[in-house]
Amino acid sequence: MPDPQPWTTHSTRAAFSNKWLAVEIDDVELPNGARYEYTRLVPRAAGVAVIGFNEDGLILLEREYRHGVRQAIWQIPGGLADPNEDLRTGALRELREETGYMPAATSDETVRYLGQVWDNPAFGPMHSHIFAAWGLIQLTESRHDPAEFVTLHWVSPEWLKEAVRSGEIQDRVVITAVTWLMLNGWL
Amino acid sequence: MPDPQPWTTHSTRAAFSNKWLAVEIDDVELPNGARYEYTRLVPRAAGVAVIGFNEDGLILLEREYRHGVRQAIWQIPGGLADPNEDLRTGALRELREETGYMPAATSDETVRYLGQVWDNPAFGPMHSHIFAAWGLIQLTESRHDPAEFVTLHWVSPEWLKEAVRSGEIQDRVVITAVTWLMLNGWL
Repeated sequence: MPDPQPWTTHSTRAAFSNKWLAVEIDDVELPNGARYEYTRLVPRAAGVAVIGFNEDGLILLEREYRHGVRQAIWQIPGGLADPNEDLRTGALRELREETGYMPAATSDETVRYLGQVWDNPAFGPMHSHIFAAWGLIQLTESRHDPAEFVTLHWVSPEWLKEAVRSGEIQDRVVITAVTWLMLNGWL
Repeated sequence: MPDPQPWTTHSTRAAFSNKWLAVEIDDVELPNGARYEYTRLVPRAAGVAVIGFNEDGLILLEREYRHGVRQAIWQIPGGLADPNEDLRTGALRELREETGYMPAATSDETVRYLGQVWDNPAFGPMHSHIFAAWGLIQLTESRHDPAEFVTLHWVSPEWLKEAVRSGEIQDRVVITAVTWLMLNGWL
């Protein structure tokens, strides 16, 4: 079966832009010839995140107040990759900055790329790249961005899976990290 | 350990708004007293989606061109709940409208609530509520929104899990649906 055809973009105008978010509106033509105004978001940078294990097999989670949902929620360490920064480097930098933990050794065995998940493909290409890391040890005290207030928590694989199943964890980054670990036999 | 404290919102201003998207900027005060401008999205409606099985245990997927990511991607049937519409009713309506399929019988055994996933808790409370349905049969031809061009595909549980693992599927709604089914022993 042939794939649905792409739409044609005739023009694009900026509708809103600041340091954090930009909105653009496309004049698009659908495969049936209809014209349509499509509102979408323009990503500022790729998201990067790390789900990390210590030597006891426990997993490092954060609780962080997220103003977007106006509550403290479960997350994994992560943030935005810097411009031109390698995704893996960015993910490990965020891990270290937010938690003070890093893998004792960094190799293709102790840090693995799990995959990419879109925030919402209807709104734009915003996405996160998620890595897994094993053998975390504490290198430094955590150093927080002034806008971040985070507490660290070590949880068991069983607790983590039940928290995803029950809805205690609702963030797509944590859920997809758990999924990929399970499907690879690593959780 | 006490949870990170919520922030205080002193005022909110509208920055952009149309039928599809609204952006607001909050003047917030952090727990350390710092003031900050926080840009966030205002949801228009709750997302609803259904991952459905037929009597042979195959799963109904869609391929749909999503202009936000400018490609045809794997999704499950879904859309936005209508105002005041029950989430389950909305999810089954979207299933029927997009695919023509419905569960042969509708009960607490054949339609189950799986959970809720946020698009991105940093940007706002946009989220999807995901249901699972068993025993799908074709009731009508599919009826598409003019802006939707969708092809339907029946896949096996093994194919679906491998497509999530390998990154062929990158949408958070499909991935979380698979996760919840696996964690409940239904996939």
